[in-house]
Order: sequence, then structure tokens, then C-alpha cells
Amino acid sequence: MKISKEHNIKNRNLQGAEILCIGSELLLGNIVNTNAAWLAEQLTILGIGHFRQTVIGDNSFRLKEVILEASNRSRILITTGGLGPTLDDITTEVIAEAFNTPLEERHEILIDLKNKLRNRNSRLSASQKKQCLVPEGSQIINNHTGTAPGIIWSPKDGFTILTFPGVPSELKEMWTREGAQWLINNNFSKNIISSKVLHFTGISESSLADKIPHLLKNHNPTVATYASTGEVKIRITAKGDNLDEINKFIEPIKQELMQITGSKCYSEDNETLEELIYKLLLERKETIAVAESCTGGGIGSRMTKVPGSSRIFHGGVIAYNDLIKQEVLDVPKETINTFGAVSKQVVEFMARGVQKKFKTNWAISVSGIAGPTGGSKLKPVGLVNFCIKGPNTLITWEERFGSNKTREDIQKLSVLNALDRLRLSIISEN
Amino acid sequence: MKISKEHNIKNRNLQGAEILCIGSELLLGNIVNTNAAWLAEQLTILGIGHFRQTVIGDNSFRLKEVILEASNRSRILITTGGLGPTLDDITTEVIAEAFNTPLEERHEILIDLKNKLRNRNSRLSASQKKQCLVPEGSQIINNHTGTAPGIIWSPKDGFTILTFPGVPSELKEMWTREGAQWLINNNFSKNIISSKVLHFTGISESSLADKIPHLLKNHNPTVATYASTGEVKIRITAKGDNLDEINKFIEPIKQELMQITGSKCYSEDNETLEELIYKLLLERKETIAVAESCTGGGIGSRMTKVPGSSRIFHGGVIAYNDLIKQEVLDVPKETINTFGAVSKQVVEFMARGVQKKFKTNWAISVSGIAGPTGGSKLKPVGLVNFCIKGPNTLITWEERFGSNKTREDIQKLSVLNALDRLRLSIISEN
Repeated sequence: MKISKEHNIKNRNLQGAEILCIGSELLLGNIVNTNAAWLAEQLTILGIGHFRQTVIGDNSFRLKEVILEASNRSRILITTGGLGPTLDDITTEVIAEAFNTPLEERHEILIDLKNKLRNRNSRLSASQKKQCLVPEGSQIINNHTGTAPGIIWSPKDGFTILTFPGVPSELKEMWTREGAQWLINNNFSKNIISSKVLHFTGISESSLADKIPHLLKNHNPTVATYASTGEVKIRITAKGDNLDEINKFIEPIKQELMQITGSKCYSEDNETLEELIYKLLLERKETIAVAESCTGGGIGSRMTKVPGSSRIFHGGVIAYNDLIKQEVLDVPKETINTFGAVSKQVVEFMARGVQKKFKTNWAISVSGIAGPTGGSKLKPVGLVNFCIKGPNTLITWEERFGSNKTREDIQKLSVLNALDRLRLSIISEN
Repeated sequence: MKISKEHNIKNRNLQGAEILCIGSELLLGNIVNTNAAWLAEQLTILGIGHFRQTVIGDNSFRLKEVILEASNRSRILITTGGLGPTLDDITTEVIAEAFNTPLEERHEILIDLKNKLRNRNSRLSASQKKQCLVPEGSQIINNHTGTAPGIIWSPKDGFTILTFPGVPSELKEMWTREGAQWLINNNFSKNIISSKVLHFTGISESSLADKIPHLLKNHNPTVATYASTGEVKIRITAKGDNLDEINKFIEPIKQELMQITGSKCYSEDNETLEELIYKLLLERKETIAVAESCTGGGIGSRMTKVPGSSRIFHGGVIAYNDLIKQEVLDVPKETINTFGAVSKQVVEFMARGVQKKFKTNWAISVSGIAGPTGGSKLKPVGLVNFCIKGPNTLITWEERFGSNKTREDIQKLSVLNALDRLRLSIISEN
């Protein structure tokens, strides 16, 4: 290894906590590691720097290796898993062994265990008794909902291990009741950290990043982008002594970002596009219906995710077949024959048709080629036509999402694009 | 560190692959690391031993540290994240730097990138050009759905790095198309391992597990259950010298499982419910339409995920508002007034209405209370009524998913339940 030991030690003060999740089921891919994400968020809230997560199976050699590595680079190691009564629960004994410390039986754990088992009409087995053993000198984290307690133990100067069970509900209860409090009382939680998330659609992560290179280099607050299909988030995170101070850091950066990105930012809290549309229409006391071809009901499905959406959403027609476009939405047969089902002319008729039939103020329609077949040179896979009809709005447009995209992505991008343009259209009527 | 370098080297042959997920969003707890679980499952399927997962932020010092550590203990390092165009995407350059290797621009990536951007009517920015740089001597993993390619590179003898983007759909596509194949071709997948996945709906993971305790203890094949909202998978995995041998291991276990679980198992490959329905209807040359209230288009959206679904799916009506149920689907006003919109009587009229209007052989309808409000003692949140009308079928039924469930879960469970009963109804007409 080219990184010298000196370097590690020099950097030690910089490194705060790390998370170690123990369990072969995580390595087999049987379960998703939600504990790591939950603990990570808790550490962020407490303002405790956290730089590494590791997952290891129920193997004592490798577990010991990771524990010793962590003790040389971090101040806090938080473990989950391996505290139970079975043979493959080895966390406590491996931790003790790693620092050549004997285990001792704790009478208070034994009493607690016997009480819990009595409530379940069950008796203490030899393997369950293992849960009463902890390294000499360690403090107990009580487990109120399960049987296995955790420990807080500093095997060496400046390094503390906190252990928790792998069962998410037990971990959360023990963390909230005792773990977090210990970290605060022992001054690990130095700064308060808070963040604001801006949501974007209709812009790629790279074009967004290209507009704000100076902000991405910022230190306090830090600015970071996150992408998923069709959506980008920017998180502004600041540290400070109190919330007022933090907000004073965040606000100017937020303003600058909003100015640069304009209407591309649809939300500065965690509101979804459908929630925003719901609020906008509710305020205007207006209603909407959808006419969907290639999205097959995806827009309606998003609109109805909002509780109470029946107040603004009347429903719609999934006009997947061209005959349905004609017979249910009154799209003239000759328009389909002349321009094709994926055309501005057809989506306009679809929107007008559903608006009339469902007696709504607004209508949105979509028709496109989701692929993988059905594309042509003139109308490739990924070509989608849209129309929005409102009290004073009539817009049709087309998007080319690219024929390399999957059917699923083209459908998802179409839904997002439709919802975002709808949001902007309603705003521009205000 | 007490573990000597000799020890590490001695153990090197024992260790197979490790997974390194890169991204500060994982350390901040913004997202759950589903990529690690997915990759872990893929490695298990290939029979490649995998002993460690690490998560690190977008920090070049710590990233380099982890890469060098891995190179001293494992044969394969699989990374996700940090391949994009932004400033905090540092994976490729840090890997090159860790092994003192210069980056080189690859013409084929540049061409591919320009083509993709042309399809999107967008131009190559300076930051995007970064994605064309890879360490000298590395092989490219093509990215067909996104922009950032991955690499396969052996910076030292007996150690290979495979890099993938953090976007799950891109990772999966690239792994399946090129990554897994490379590992097989290069003999990392020693034993042949094969597995069969049985898919279930309408049964909980624990009731399924309770029926098969003896099988869950099995060694070769192993039997494991995986649960998600409304669905359970059972994976039967066997090792052997050849596929014939493996199938001989798997077949009797599969038969036993099928016998115990009956029609609850809907698929023994990775076929989805909508794919099965598509095939069944195509074979019978029949068509279907949907009438959705509380699912808001969710069933239609699932049906149209299948390429070519227009051959069997005509579309449907999202009848979210009661007036739409009356005016578009011809549900009598007095039926709604007498029995309520969430009733067997109303879903039957909805199914008959859409079947007639859309001229299809089959129709399925749903009306329920997705919550969180709108429930009553008699009709609580989670109550959903369904109807299926086919050439010789007319069934209506109700489900009570539980008022403790979220709106999202109730909508998802309704869609699954509808699709599964539709599958069984078509089969029973055969």
C-alpha cells in the first residue's frame, strides 16, 4: 500500500465515524442494506462526519480485520448485526478478541433476558446466554424490543465502538433512545447540519453541472447533484452553530441556483410534480383529464398518487388502439391516416376529445413510439408528441428521447415531461 | 494494524470479488444502496465468492485508499458510481492515479457520445468530454442507455477492476450485456451455478416460509425467499459440473415447491404478470380493456410495459370521478347512490361498460379506497372491489388490504391482485 501509516495517523483527526454492517445475507444479495442508509442519515443530522461504510459476512477473520482497520482511521465505529444467539452471531466476541480483552457475563443482562423469555413462555437456552457476554469495561445499550443488547466500548484511546442488532426496528429504537444521546453527551455532535434539496426535470445532470461549476466547488454550504431517470436533484448542505446561521449560508446559494436555472427547478422541498399540479389546480378550482397512448395510464397513475386528487382529477382515456382514439376520443380517421397516430394533429384532437368528454378545464394527451419496434427513419423509437389544452392554453410539442432508450425509460420520461410542462402551463395562466 | 502484510497476501487467493459503491449521497443517507444488493445477487448466481462491500464518498484521498486496499486482498473489484461528467465524478481518474497510469482519450467513446447527443439535439460540453478518458490499456464496457462507459482493467497481476455507473438501469444493462460475460469468459465463475426463480403473489413471505421449513435448510440446492410489496420470490440455486447435473438437483425441489404452493406461483422464469397475460391473450386471439378508479391508470400502465401490447390491449377508462363512471362507463346513477362507488355492483357495471365501449373480449375493473382519508367503519381504507368479465367469466370480489397500509401500497397491491386474478381467469377458460 502506498499510503503511509503516518499519513493515516495524520488524517485520523479528520475522520469521524464509520459504519460496519455484519451479515452474510447482505453479501448474498438477499436483502438491501437499509440500516446503513438510515444510520448515515442519523449521523448527517447529528453533524458527525462519516466517511466509509463496510459490509462483511459472518466470518471472524475478516470481521477482525475490518475492526482493526477502522480503529486506525476513525474515532467511532458503529456496527449492525451479529449480536443474536445463533452460532453465526460473532460480533461481540470478535470485537473483544481484536483488542485482546476477555468477555464477562453481565448479571443485569441475564435478569433482563430471563424476564423477556418468561413473558414469551420460553426458557433460557445455552445459546441465548451468549448474549450476556460483553467485553470487560464496556457499557450496555439496552434493547427494549428484542433480546440482544448492544455495547458502547472504547478499546483504545480515541476510538469507540457502538454495536446494534441487525433488525431495523431494534436498531432504530436503541439508536434513538441511547446511541445518539451518548454521541451528543460525549461531544461528537459538534455542528448542526441542515440541507435543502432542489428538484429539476427537463435538464440533464451534466448541463446543470456545467452551469454551476463554481458552486460545486463550494465548501460551506456544499452543493451536489444527484441524477435518476429524467430527474436531477441539487442538495445544498451547510454546517453551523444554529439553524439561523445555517439558513443564512444556504439562502444566497439557493437564490443564485434558482436564478441560473430558472423554471427548470420545480420544487425546493420534497414535493412531487403531481403534488404541485394538485395544489395549482386546487387553487384555481380547475380540473383535468388525460388521454394517454404510449404511456398507457402512467400519467393518471402519477396524478392519483396524491391523496384527495379526485378534487382536481376526473380521470381519462387510455387510447392505446387507434380505433379507440377515433371512437372514444373523436379523433378523425383521416387525421390518423394522413399524419399518423404519433403526430401533433392527433394529440391535439385527443386532448380536445378528452376535455370535452370529461368536462374538465384542462386536458393533456400523449402519443409516441415507446419501442423497441415500431420506429421508422422519420419517426424513430423515442419520438413522443404531447398536447396541453387549458382555459387559455393550447400547446403541442414533440420530444425525441433517443432510440437507444429502453421502452420503460421512454414511458417514464414521457410522463415526467408531460407533468412538468403541465405545471409550467398552469403557472403561466396565473 | 496487527494483520501483517504476509497474512494479507497468503489470504489473497481465498478472496474473490469485492464491491465498492462510490457517492457522497450514500454517506449522507439520501439513497439506499440497492446497487450493492443487486450486484451481490449477481455474484452469487455466478458462484463468485464475494466478501466485502465498501461505500465511500466522492473524495479522492479515501477512494484511492480503498482501491489500493482492495488490490492487496481481492482478485476482482467492482465499482459503481462516479463515472459521469460532473466535477465530483472522480472514479476513473482516481483508479488511474492509484496505479500511476496516464489516462488516454478513446476515439470510439467520443464518437458514441456525439451520436447520442445528436439524437437528443444536444452538443458535447467540456465536462462531458471527460467521459472519453480511460486508463491506458483498459477495455471499455459500453453503455447503451446512458452516456458514461465503464472499464475493465487489470492494473496489476491477478487484480481486475470493473467500473459501472451508479444509475441502476445502466449498471444492470452493462453488467448483463458485458460484465458478467467477461467474468465467465475469464474463468472467475468456477463452478457452474444455476438458479430458478419462482414468483408468487397473493401470499406473504412468512406464510410461504412456514410451509417449507425443511427446504429452507437445504444445502445444494439452496432455497431462499425474497419479499417486496405484494410479491415473493423463491430462488432455488444449485452448483454442479454441468447444467444437466444442476437441473437434476433443482427439478425435484421445484416440483415439491409447486405442489405445496399450487397456483400461487405465477411464473418460474422472470416473466412478469403482464407478460403472461399478453401471451395467454395472444394465443387466444383475444383483447382486453381496463376501467380503473383507485388505481388511476396503474393496470393500464403495467399492461403497456410489454412491447407489442397493442395487439391485445385496446386501452381503458380512468373513471376517477363518479360522474365519469356514469357518463363514460354507463354505471347507473342509482347503483352508485344505493351501493356506493366502492361496491361489487359498481365494478360489475364498470367492467361491462368498458368491455362494450372498447369492443374487447375481456374487461377488468377496480374501485377502492386508497386512503389515507375516505374510509368508514363499514368501508375502511384498503377496501378494494374488482370485477373481471371474459367470454365465459364474470367474477367480482373484494380485498381488504388493511387500513394501516400506505396509499401507494394499496394502489400497488390492487394492481398486482387484479393482474394475478386476470391471469388465473384466462387460464381457467382454456
